[in-house]
Amino acid sequence: MKIPRKRAYPLDDIRRFLEPGPVVLVSSAHGGQRNIMTMGWHMMMGFEPALFACYLWHGNHTYGLVRRSRECVINLPGSHLLDAVVGIGNCSGAQVDKFERFGLTAGRASQVGAPLIRECHANFECRLYEQRQTDAYHLFIWEVVAAHVAISPRVPETVHYRGNGEFMISGRTISRRRAFRPENL
Amino acid sequence: MKIPRKRAYPLDDIRRFLEPGPVVLVSSAHGGQRNIMTMGWHMMMGFEPALFACYLWHGNHTYGLVRRSRECVINLPGSHLLDAVVGIGNCSGAQVDKFERFGLTAGRASQVGAPLIRECHANFECRLYEQRQTDAYHLFIWEVVAAHVAISPRVPETVHYRGNGEFMISGRTISRRRAFRPENL
Repeated sequence: MKIPRKRAYPLDDIRRFLEPGPVVLVSSAHGGQRNIMTMGWHMMMGFEPALFACYLWHGNHTYGLVRRSRECVINLPGSHLLDAVVGIGNCSGAQVDKFERFGLTAGRASQVGAPLIRECHANFECRLYEQRQTDAYHLFIWEVVAAHVAISPRVPETVHYRGNGEFMISGRTISRRRAFRPENL
Repeated sequence: MKIPRKRAYPLDDIRRFLEPGPVVLVSSAHGGQRNIMTMGWHMMMGFEPALFACYLWHGNHTYGLVRRSRECVINLPGSHLLDAVVGIGNCSGAQVDKFERFGLTAGRASQVGAPLIRECHANFECRLYEQRQTDAYHLFIWEVVAAHVAISPRVPETVHYRGNGEFMISGRTISRRRAFRPENL
């Protein structure tokens, strides 16, 4: 699969990719194990620091890896990776190495030990910012400490989960910039 | 504006509308005041009970109303409501009644005191489930206690915010149902 060229991206502008609600891939590593999981329950929580929250079920193999390493990479797959996204969500890292099984390339992150997925359109390196909520709600709040985004296309076609095995594919972009107050942009 | 006919919807299946990451409208009321705000920072957090989390900035007029009333309605606007969505996000309920200004119809909710927005495709009535996180993170966790969804279309065209005044309009739906393990559907 094609590996896009990327550049560093401003952390206070990563909402551009995460706020529309795409399915993302969470990559993690700890103690010689690595894994990838498919995730749709997440949201932006702040610009500076760049905070991002997600829900991770404790039954997932990734849950243990990120609790112990306190790091992960949030990877944004383009729609051409949909079959890998579905496959990754339907097997367990306890049994298989998902990088190998799905032909994905683990890249070295700049700030965290977790691998990034080079085929994805963007990679957001995360450190655990707050885990007091984890036991009660399985909620992790991450600080994004480095971002890498493909040089083109400017707007990737992303996949958004609707439940029941169905995905929405992102459509056209339209601007209402002129209707915004400058401080709200 | 057209008001769609709606029916009650199973609470454990509301992810269908919220998980793809659309912009939603939060309606609230307290002490004779009511308001609407535009919101993009939210996520699903559970099926049973149906939990939904969102980030609300304390500077928003809605913040005080929902903290005091401990209730709100999450309304899902179709893309034909985009200009209202943008307008609502760019004025303050401290100055204007947004139902009046944007020609929206306040309907009576079945379980909460907050009004619902009848022109929206779906309305999810919420009661505050957990607010221990509110002071530290402006994070509200809601239990959805009633859901009303338009009978048609089955899949609404929704708007998803990209920042910088730009919106992604939801595109086509595709199924990968056959690639899912039954327990993951």
